[in-house]
This record gives sequence, C-alpha cells and structure tokens, in this order.
Amino acid sequence: MKTHPVLIAGRWRRARENGHFSPDNPATRSPLDQQYPISDWSDCDEALDAAAAAARELRQLPAKQRARFLERYADKIDAARDEIAALANLETALPAAPRLAEAELPRTTNQLRQAAAAAREGSWAQATIDTQLNIRSQLAPIGPVVVFGPNNFPLAFNGVSGGDFAAAIAAGNPVIAKGHSSHPGTCQRLAELALAALIETGLPAAAVQLIYATARENGLRLVSDPRTGASAFTGSRPAGLALKQAADEAGKPIYLELSSINPVVILPGALAERGADLAREFADSCLMGTGQFCTNPGLLILPAGEAAERFIARATELFNEAPVGTLLGATGESGLAAAIDTLRGAGARQLTDSDGADPNRFCRPNTLLRVSGEVFLQHGFRLQTEAFGNAALLVVSDNSQQTLAILDSLEGNLTGCLYSHSGRDDEADYALLEPALRDRVGRLLNDKMPTGVAVSPAMNHGGPYPASGNAGFTAVGIPASLRRFAKLECYDNVRQHRLPPLLQDQNPGDAWRLVDGSWSQRSIP
Amino acid sequence: MKTHPVLIAGRWRRARENGHFSPDNPATRSPLDQQYPISDWSDCDEALDAAAAAARELRQLPAKQRARFLERYADKIDAARDEIAALANLETALPAAPRLAEAELPRTTNQLRQAAAAAREGSWAQATIDTQLNIRSQLAPIGPVVVFGPNNFPLAFNGVSGGDFAAAIAAGNPVIAKGHSSHPGTCQRLAELALAALIETGLPAAAVQLIYATARENGLRLVSDPRTGASAFTGSRPAGLALKQAADEAGKPIYLELSSINPVVILPGALAERGADLAREFADSCLMGTGQFCTNPGLLILPAGEAAERFIARATELFNEAPVGTLLGATGESGLAAAIDTLRGAGARQLTDSDGADPNRFCRPNTLLRVSGEVFLQHGFRLQTEAFGNAALLVVSDNSQQTLAILDSLEGNLTGCLYSHSGRDDEADYALLEPALRDRVGRLLNDKMPTGVAVSPAMNHGGPYPASGNAGFTAVGIPASLRRFAKLECYDNVRQHRLPPLLQDQNPGDAWRLVDGSWSQRSIP
Repeated sequence: MKTHPVLIAGRWRRARENGHFSPDNPATRSPLDQQYPISDWSDCDEALDAAAAAARELRQLPAKQRARFLERYADKIDAARDEIAALANLETALPAAPRLAEAELPRTTNQLRQAAAAAREGSWAQATIDTQLNIRSQLAPIGPVVVFGPNNFPLAFNGVSGGDFAAAIAAGNPVIAKGHSSHPGTCQRLAELALAALIETGLPAAAVQLIYATARENGLRLVSDPRTGASAFTGSRPAGLALKQAADEAGKPIYLELSSINPVVILPGALAERGADLAREFADSCLMGTGQFCTNPGLLILPAGEAAERFIARATELFNEAPVGTLLGATGESGLAAAIDTLRGAGARQLTDSDGADPNRFCRPNTLLRVSGEVFLQHGFRLQTEAFGNAALLVVSDNSQQTLAILDSLEGNLTGCLYSHSGRDDEADYALLEPALRDRVGRLLNDKMPTGVAVSPAMNHGGPYPASGNAGFTAVGIPASLRRFAKLECYDNVRQHRLPPLLQDQNPGDAWRLVDGSWSQRSIP
Repeated sequence: MKTHPVLIAGRWRRARENGHFSPDNPATRSPLDQQYPISDWSDCDEALDAAAAAARELRQLPAKQRARFLERYADKIDAARDEIAALANLETALPAAPRLAEAELPRTTNQLRQAAAAAREGSWAQATIDTQLNIRSQLAPIGPVVVFGPNNFPLAFNGVSGGDFAAAIAAGNPVIAKGHSSHPGTCQRLAELALAALIETGLPAAAVQLIYATARENGLRLVSDPRTGASAFTGSRPAGLALKQAADEAGKPIYLELSSINPVVILPGALAERGADLAREFADSCLMGTGQFCTNPGLLILPAGEAAERFIARATELFNEAPVGTLLGATGESGLAAAIDTLRGAGARQLTDSDGADPNRFCRPNTLLRVSGEVFLQHGFRLQTEAFGNAALLVVSDNSQQTLAILDSLEGNLTGCLYSHSGRDDEADYALLEPALRDRVGRLLNDKMPTGVAVSPAMNHGGPYPASGNAGFTAVGIPASLRRFAKLECYDNVRQHRLPPLLQDQNPGDAWRLVDGSWSQRSIP
C-alpha cells in the first residue's frame, strides 16, 4: 500500500518516515485501507525552515491578502462539502449529516471568513498611539504556529482548518498543522484545498504545512524550536502538559485546551419548578455527539430531596432509552471505560444499564452515575476525572453550604452553569454560589447547557488551568483568539514612513485604534 | 539589635524567621545598622491565606475604592518625599536628588495615579458585549499577585509601590510584595504608608503585604501555590528563570523582566553626519545611573571605517573622563566584573582605563570594550552577556550584511535602536536591517537612546524571551500592564442584575466597551 504524502514547503512529497499508521473506521473497529506516515525529525526541521521563511514573507504582504486566502479556502471547503463530510464521517463516525455537512462544516467556513474579516479590518491588533510622545504599538505576528488539532472536531478544530488555524493565519503567521491520527484523510483533503487557495491568492506556499504524526519527542521539539513562534493544542491532558513543559522551558508560548468536566448546578427553585424539563435538557446535551465535546456537562450537582430523585429517575430513563452513539476511536473507548471505573472506584454508583454496547463499533453504554456530596468532598480529585464521552456524574448535595464546598474543591473548567428559578426564588443561593463557580470557569452560564460554543467576539472558550494553559485567552471568538498568536511591538520616535500601516497617522482603513486614550476609527490630522 | 517586623494580614508583626540580614550601604561598603528577617514558609503561608481572603473581598468592592486607595497612597508618598528619598539613597546610593526625589518618586506616584484612573474608568477590562447572543466578557482580577521587585528602582519598580504593584492592585488583586534585600528599609516605609492608605480608604488590610526575604525554595513555593493568581518578577535571569519554571509547572502565570543588552545600531549616514554627537549621547545614556537600567545600551554596532574610529576614540575619552558612579551593591559589583571578564575572554578588547574604582564604595571603572563583527559572530553567545552597570561593548561591523548577521544572532531584548541619517541616506540599510531587529525587541527606536521608559499607553517595556517571559505583554504603560493580572471571564445568558457592572446594558461610567464589534462609551438602549 502506498503511504500518503506530507505537505512541506509548498509541495506534497513522500515523508521521511519513522513508520506509518492506518486510521480506524470507528463504525466497524477495522482499519481503513489507507496508510499515513509518521514523520521523522527531518520532516519537522524542513517544515520549520520553510515556515520561518514564509513568516518573513507574510510580514511584507498586506493583511488583505491573507484575508483573501482565508475566504478562498472557505469557498473551496464549501464547494467540497459533501466529499469532506463523507470522508470525515468514514474516519470519525460522526454523522455526515446533519453534524458534519450542516453544522460543523459551515461553522468551519464561518470561522475562516470571520478571521478573514478580522485580518482585513485590523482592529484585532489593538493599535495604540500616543501622539504627544510619538510612541505607537500594536500586536504583530509572532512567527510560525504549530497547531495540534483534537479528534472530536475533524473540521472546526482541525489543525489545518479550525479555529486555531484561522486565528494564527489571520494574525499573519504560517501554520504547521499536526493532523490527528484519527482522521488523517480529512486533514489531507483540507490541506490540498488550502494549498490551492494559497497559490491562487499569492501567499507563500509554505504558509500551510501538514504532518500527520511524529514520535512524541519530535512533538516536544516542534513546540520548543527556536523557529517556532507559538503553539496551540487541543486534546488530552497528559499530552498537552508534556508539550506545555517543553514549550515553557524554551520560553515559547503555548495555548492549550485540556480537560473539563463543566459543572452544572441546579438550584432548588429551578429543580422544583422544571425538574423534568431539565432532566431532558441535561440528557440531550450530555449525549449529543456521543458526549464528545470539550464542553460536555460531565458533572451535575443538585440538592437532595424528592425532586432530585425524580430528576435522577427521569435522567436515568432517558440515558437508558437513548441510542448509543459511536465513539471516535479505540483510545476514546478505553479511556471512557477507565474513567468510569475510576469514578466507580471512588464511590460513584452507576444508575444506567451496563449493556447496550455494540461489539462491532467503538462505543460504551450511555452511563449515568451518582454520588453523595459527602463522598464527593472526600474523593474530589478522582471524582473530577473527565469521562470523555456519553457519561456523567450526578452529585446529590445535602445543602447549599455543601454545594459551596464542592464548588470550592473544583479544578479549573471551561464552563460552569447555574440553573435557577425563573423568578427570584434562588437569588440567595445564586449569590452564595456564583463567586466560587465564577472563579473556576472561563464561561459562566445561566439556565442553559454549555455544549454550544458560539463564535462570538464575547465568547470565552478557555478557563483557569488546567482547563486551559492561560486563563487570559480564548480559543474561540474573533478577534480575541487572534491575540494569542501575536507579540506586542512598540515604535518609539520612529519616522512616519517606516511605521507599519496601522500605526501611521493615516488610518489605512477603518480599524479601531486607541489614540491618546480614546478608541477611534479616524486618521490623525 | 531588634529585627524589623513583616506586614502580614494587616499588621506589623515579628517574622517567623529563618535568619536575618542587614543591607549594605553601597557608598561605604559597610552594613547598615538595621536587621531584617528572612521569613520562613509559615509567614508566606499566612500571607497567602490573608491574600486569598482579601481577593474575595476586593471583588465585592467597587473599582473606585481601589482607585481611591492608590491615590491616597500616592499622596502619602509625595508627602514623605524627602524622607523616602533619603532612606532609599542610604540603601542604594542612588542620588537623593535629582534621581530619587525629583525623578523616580514623582514617576512612582504618577504611575499609582494613572493606575487609579484606569481602575476607576474601567476600559482596561476590555468589556465585550454581544447583544444578539447575550454573551458578555471582560478581564477580571486573577487573584493574589506576588511581586518581586528589582534592586535598581527602589521606588518605581518596588514590589510595594512600583509599576507591577500599581497594575496588580488596579486590576483588583491583593499584592504580596517580596521586598528587595538591598533596600528593605525603603520597602518597609512604603508599606507603612500603604497600610495607612488601605485603612483610610476601607480596603482589606491584607490587600498589601510585605516580606523582605525568603529562602529560595519558599520563593518557588510562593509563585506556584494554588492560592496565588499570578506573579511578577524583575531582576536577574537565573533567579527569574527558576521562578518561571516553578510557576509554569503549577500552571500559574508569571511575568518576568530579565536581562537585556538593548542593541543600538548606528547606520553609516548617521555616523558620518553626527558621529561626535552620537558618541556623547551614547556615553551619557550608558553611564546614567551608573548604567543600572534595564534599558541601558550595552551593545552598540557601528560600521567600520574612519568615522567609527573617531566615534570610538571620543566615546572612550568620555567614558574615561566621566565620574565613576556607585553600584547598588556587592553582587552588582562582582557581577559586573565577572561579565566584563566574560566579554574579554570571548575576544573583546577593553578601551578604557582599568583604574578609577574607589575601594571604599561599590563601583567599577567606566568600561568600554570593542570587538570586530567577525569575532562577535564567532562568540555571539558569550558576547551577549549582560554587563549590568557602567559598561558597554562596541561591535565594529565590516558591512551591512555582517550587521544583519549580527542582528540575526541576537537573543530577545527589551529595546533596539536604529540611528540613521536625518535625510534619506540610510534608507536602504534601514530597510535591510529593521526586520531582523524588529523581530528581536519589544520596543524599536529611531535616533534615540533607549534609557527613557515613558509611562505611556503605547509603551512596551517587554520583549521576546528571554528579555521577558511573554512577548505579548508590557510591564510599563497603563492600561496595558493591568491585563497581565487578569483572567477572561465570560457570561453566557446571565441575567442582567447578576452581571458585573461593566457588562450590564447600562454603562456605569464612561468605560470603552466593544459592543457588537464597535468600541463605544454608550449604554445599550
């Protein structure tokens, strides 16, 4: 079988291999009839050299040119929609429709187009001008960005098409994508479209490169190499933390999105008012996409009592009745099983049936567990194990003070939700609990499950460590996500014609600039 | 002799000691008749507990209250100006006037007042509102900030009164100051004023705490403790990198300002046009404050030829003629001597006289060295050793291509300067060299020495690693410096009355907010 090529320095060529792999079809547990290389260091090294040269070229090109590339690329993805959805479906078992073709793919091209608009418009750079002292600064490209995409969004978070990719390019940086081994064919097809769009729009052909896999130590070298500007990683905590350590030691920024159990608190008034509806909302959110979302609600805390028992009985029914979805791969399946074992070993009791797993595909039964607040406080570390997939833990809390202690014991998470009475019945509990939850999450929700992550300028898809590596930044939301891939560049007494366009007196377009303390789109007279 | 107390949890109390120390008087080389404690971990532990409680209290208080504290504190410092200048002069040998009383102290209180204005006004938090989706986010306090101040600015960068302190408090965080052992009395006096101002303005008394010194391992524990939000460090590279490693491993942000040699490039046209003036400008900048500035020009590159030789002869004269300043302490003196030895060992030739050091105070002769571009390229790592103090290295470059290679070999620096002909004689060289220098510095200057660091919103006092720990942030310049001590907090579908003031429809003051993509000071109708 022929091994697929890598995309390095603008051309598809045979990899210098340390071996190869075939992705599995999760719906059959069998390997697909395709072979992809595990690149050795010399592939990475060549990609870094090419990326460094591309970074210098990109700095000389106007922002509108990278905007045109992102838009052209988005158009090509849209045009290949059914083909890409079919390919990603084969590799991930995520439904071709509506999930891939009608939700994730349009989200992906929307992100690319939003990033294009942000690049063209320029406000993301937060140009700041002190006219009296003639000191001017802006955020500027940081250099080649290495993007490690996760397995659960083969398009919208793909290293070669997703949010990190779009943000890095829009900010003016080349990307070296490390494809995910669960869906290398999808990565390859996307990279083909990206290369075509690069060529058509006159960007350096090495602005987008693709490697499918490397040995672990070469991943560590990639994020810490002097030629690398920054890295982005979405995936498992152990892999992410190893990369973080390597990058930190080299003084290289790395933006991580790691594990999160996304605590949901149902306050007494909400439970009394609409418990059955909330059970349905919770089960739907938890089982959607077989629970394989970063913001899947994995921990739900509710006040003990009859209403709680009714909620739990209803949620258990819904979990038992719902079809069992397919998981993304063998490691997802074994990881989910191990996490459930950990939760049970720490005192959680399984409520749902143990059968329902189809031996012919990667899957686990829909699993709901429960534990008392007291036991949670005793074994909080193990009971915060992320069970990535169609599983969740219910914590039955004795009272609001115990709920507060539970929240105070939580690690950093991407999201936290508080469900409260539609009137003011829960105001006192809300006031008591909100500060503790607020402090531990990136996004705080009211009366809404966390699974939808809107691409909004106000979104925060990030959170306190270890949910992410830096609680000051978001991975979703434009233009904020661009600022991760930038450094602050200041010009002091620099002559007008030598300044970058955004810092000259004449505003080159309608970018917002902070001029002498006021945001403005005007030119300086 | 009685050991001075530490300020923990709102009161001055005897430290739990691991020993004690006396600071030196740099002008006499003799210890001052004062004794300060080296705190053990239990002091740090108590400070962290108190800071965590103060952080929660601060979040409940309006921003204007911390603004009032910063202003009251600034007023008290101004009122105690002569006393503080005298004390700092005794401990650091920096001139009481004009340096301390007329330059650094007013700068310090100016920073505190600018930070107060930023806190009160609120734009620093970059409130971002998506009215359609009802998603809102802002930067919010990150938690207790540990500030390690350097020895060279006993007021303006002091952990208990300087720029990091002001930014951390303005952003809503308590500060645990680690005083510098070269000027503990100055730290103590400032902390007394801070405590009085805290009490008068009703802030938690533990919002400002002071520890003079700890064992190294306790410093590492401080920056990595779960109760710590973030840390800031200004000082030597080895100490800073040890703290960085500890903080990184714990997933805690740390903002570092480390070494920098601040390369200055004189282009041929400028050298021909005004070489003698530039020699004067360079010598003045380099010897000011005995060269003990983070942005001291330690490396000057100039094109070989007769004009260069005239420049060098004149600069050497000026260095020999100038009075020899006193250094801040014994480690500064030995460090400077060792760095000069390293430069000489790597091939630099000393141009200035070797005598002129007064044995009765901490000092070294004004030292100018020279090396060829070729040798610099061979031994670039050692020849980039920072000689912190009244010393500089001249690199005589054969041609522009060699200068480019030299710039390409540089580590990250805070600043970089290009001096060019007042007309357009140097444009080609500028275009060739600027991108390489730009990429390696935080602030790029034209025709100006880097030693002045204006407190401007557009300032960048930071730069690529290892000049700082994160090239996206500045330590000087308000409001940008506040954003280091913040996390991004998002509210999704949260009810209006539960939102923090800045995110409610009604703008509580005149903060700039990014509403649906446009910056505005208006309320949402």
